[in-house]
Amino acid sequence: MRYIIILSGGMDSATLLYDSVRCRGVHARALSVNYGQRHVKELVYAVALTKRLGVEHRVVDLSALRSLMGGSSQTDAAVEVPEGHYAEESMKLTVVPNRNMILLAVAGAWAIATRSDAVAYAAHAGDHAIYPDCREEFVEALSRAFGLADWHRVTIVRPYITMMKADIVRRGLEVGVPYELTWSCYKGGARHCGRCGTCVERREAFALAGAVDPAPYEGEA
Amino acid sequence: MRYIIILSGGMDSATLLYDSVRCRGVHARALSVNYGQRHVKELVYAVALTKRLGVEHRVVDLSALRSLMGGSSQTDAAVEVPEGHYAEESMKLTVVPNRNMILLAVAGAWAIATRSDAVAYAAHAGDHAIYPDCREEFVEALSRAFGLADWHRVTIVRPYITMMKADIVRRGLEVGVPYELTWSCYKGGARHCGRCGTCVERREAFALAGAVDPAPYEGEA
Repeated sequence: MRYIIILSGGMDSATLLYDSVRCRGVHARALSVNYGQRHVKELVYAVALTKRLGVEHRVVDLSALRSLMGGSSQTDAAVEVPEGHYAEESMKLTVVPNRNMILLAVAGAWAIATRSDAVAYAAHAGDHAIYPDCREEFVEALSRAFGLADWHRVTIVRPYITMMKADIVRRGLEVGVPYELTWSCYKGGARHCGRCGTCVERREAFALAGAVDPAPYEGEA
Repeated sequence: MRYIIILSGGMDSATLLYDSVRCRGVHARALSVNYGQRHVKELVYAVALTKRLGVEHRVVDLSALRSLMGGSSQTDAAVEVPEGHYAEESMKLTVVPNRNMILLAVAGAWAIATRSDAVAYAAHAGDHAIYPDCREEFVEALSRAFGLADWHRVTIVRPYITMMKADIVRRGLEVGVPYELTWSCYKGGARHCGRCGTCVERREAFALAGAVDPAPYEGEA
């Protein structure tokens, strides 16, 4: 199987990439997109992850998309990143409009050009309630569009869709994901802030998996 | 109704824009994308068209997408533009992989950000056989994904889907489209080449509509 794997540089997509290549017999190419996100430093981690693994990686600069967006804390420096655990109301602010469809459409272009079988991304069981475009119905409809978009048919796969984040950490530790080369914090500072939604989720996942998170956090030695 | 109208700078999308604003009571914003196409000069025409009409217009530079594509004459200078009328085999070469899904996804992002009702584009009855992603089933599936992509629901509309290109010219002449400000030729030279698929179609459409095409062609005074 030949996959285009969407790689943010965070822990979920890093795990999917390593798992696919090391244990699932997948020929993987990794795609990262700069869409003007505040935590653009995650892309540096994406590069390190693919270098370590030795897979082809493209970082596509779509930061011009920022000119179309407003009101999302991920792309608009005037909006504060909400702190605390993910909760629908405050986390709506972290959503870049239509981000998943854009990422998938671009990955689909590369999949068609390389005659790959599928686009894979690391959506998991904890995603669906927060982001509309993580819901099953959305992906089903988009998968159908994918199958019709070209003479060469590409599918969308989400191998972790029934897993919780802690399960992903357990899987990643089994396949040797270098989690010190992943970045999660939405604030994109020198260290993980430990307080934004994705930091809180990350710490919780490692704790539930009974593992030590190698990421540096603010206020820790 | 508030629409994001995808504007290439060609005659079909120009007609849709002018028709929507002048006769259909639409509040329109126009979106053009530089995806690294060979005929990037069409974007200069898109700017002129929107200035003349006085509508908000954004040109988004996604030319970094070119790095993901290969084998299409629209983005790869090593591939020759096929000449002659559109015919499935030779025209496959003019297709940028997944272009329509990418354009629609990006327009959808702006539609969500501006709380618009729909994304509109000028697909017409002559398109479907050539490009897989112009087919009805593709658009139905993608429309469904659109409706599910965000809390704010956006639809996809194709007002010209039952019209032939000559019908579009007739409509455009009624609403006063300045066709001298449109560009169709895939080769992107100083004048329209008159021989590539889109030039042949354009000339045929004006001829069938019994109208004079104001575009300059090679070899004409």
